[in-house]
Amino acid sequence: MIEVVGVDGDDTLWHSETIFSVTHDRMRALLTPHCAPSVLDERLLATERRNLRYFGYGVKGFVLSMVETAIEVSEGRVTAGEVAAILDAGKAMLDHPVELLEGAREALEALAGRRRLVLVTKGDLFDQESKLARSGLGELFERVEVVAEKDERAYRRVLSAVGVAPPSFAMVGNSVRSDVLPVLGVGARAVHVPYPITWALEDADPGAAAGRYEVLDDLRGLPAALARLDDP
Amino acid sequence: MIEVVGVDGDDTLWHSETIFSVTHDRMRALLTPHCAPSVLDERLLATERRNLRYFGYGVKGFVLSMVETAIEVSEGRVTAGEVAAILDAGKAMLDHPVELLEGAREALEALAGRRRLVLVTKGDLFDQESKLARSGLGELFERVEVVAEKDERAYRRVLSAVGVAPPSFAMVGNSVRSDVLPVLGVGARAVHVPYPITWALEDADPGAAAGRYEVLDDLRGLPAALARLDDP
Repeated sequence: MIEVVGVDGDDTLWHSETIFSVTHDRMRALLTPHCAPSVLDERLLATERRNLRYFGYGVKGFVLSMVETAIEVSEGRVTAGEVAAILDAGKAMLDHPVELLEGAREALEALAGRRRLVLVTKGDLFDQESKLARSGLGELFERVEVVAEKDERAYRRVLSAVGVAPPSFAMVGNSVRSDVLPVLGVGARAVHVPYPITWALEDADPGAAAGRYEVLDDLRGLPAALARLDDP
Repeated sequence: MIEVVGVDGDDTLWHSETIFSVTHDRMRALLTPHCAPSVLDERLLATERRNLRYFGYGVKGFVLSMVETAIEVSEGRVTAGEVAAILDAGKAMLDHPVELLEGAREALEALAGRRRLVLVTKGDLFDQESKLARSGLGELFERVEVVAEKDERAYRRVLSAVGVAPPSFAMVGNSVRSDVLPVLGVGARAVHVPYPITWALEDADPGAAAGRYEVLDDLRGLPAALARLDDP
């Protein structure tokens, strides 16, 4: 029986990667005088990967990596006005209205009161709490766990803080790497709800885990998927 | 009887404001071609204040505000090389060795096993967890709560998560605004350990709260201060 349901935020409850993607497109256009779009994509990804150990996940780190990449690809010719445009794009991301995914509210409302709900998300703490507040879903969650990295250690800590045994916990999210593999790794259950876009650094092959978790098109099927996990 | 002790991280357990201050000095020197140091100070503080609602607290927001201020004060004449120097200074801050304050380790070791210890800190989650890990103090804490803002609502949530009544909780920290006033506001106890430098946006007048909390020169006096709070 699944007692506690962990739910991811970005690209599971609300759109996020589309906002990164739109900003990325704007940056490509902005930096066209300095470099080809495909070069920018490659260099930005390399910068983000290199900077993960400093910045972790989230918009602020993305903006800092974007400025760094702009300086690099332009060989120092990027203008202050262009850098200012990057900073503005970052603030627009942080200020972007929270747009819920299809079925998100209905699924959580159907579960609330029957299962304990915990938001388990990563990225900037301040930004994540702000998005949850603006989503109007805050009241449905028993608690919120923003973690620096969604690995097995983080899930073990969350389960212990919530007071639930792994077989009674299911995680729901869009990322095989963050919401599925480490959750199966600690002996809990997972429901994968893919999002149309996956950030390259979030990509993962399920490998031997394929078939060991539920896969849904959208959150409308969540109550039924959890019922299947209750009674395997 | 104080059962649970909340302990702040930055400028309570380890040096932080001195690192911001050294970086700030470097920025003053770097931007001398564009503006007078006093103008930079004033404009940077205004930018940080304006950006708090986007960035919250922490190094990444500081670096983004620094870049924004450099563009402003130079009227767009800041060079890509100067922006790159700001980004590098930010990474150096995030990579800076964690230097414990006088008496920090001894005080926590004296308390561990006798009181439940909880780290209650704000700023970038990723950076705070990294500092705690590098501090070598992680094992002494029962749990870590990184909050977006240290207000009464945050302390109520922490106390409820920890399972302690306000009169049995004491918070220890360097900031009257963040570690003392909201804690007294929820009916718990506080120990103020001032740090030589206080960031302008962290400043607060204790007002009517003066005399309602313990004040220490450094953490060596913490066990005795808590004993006084046990037995008022």
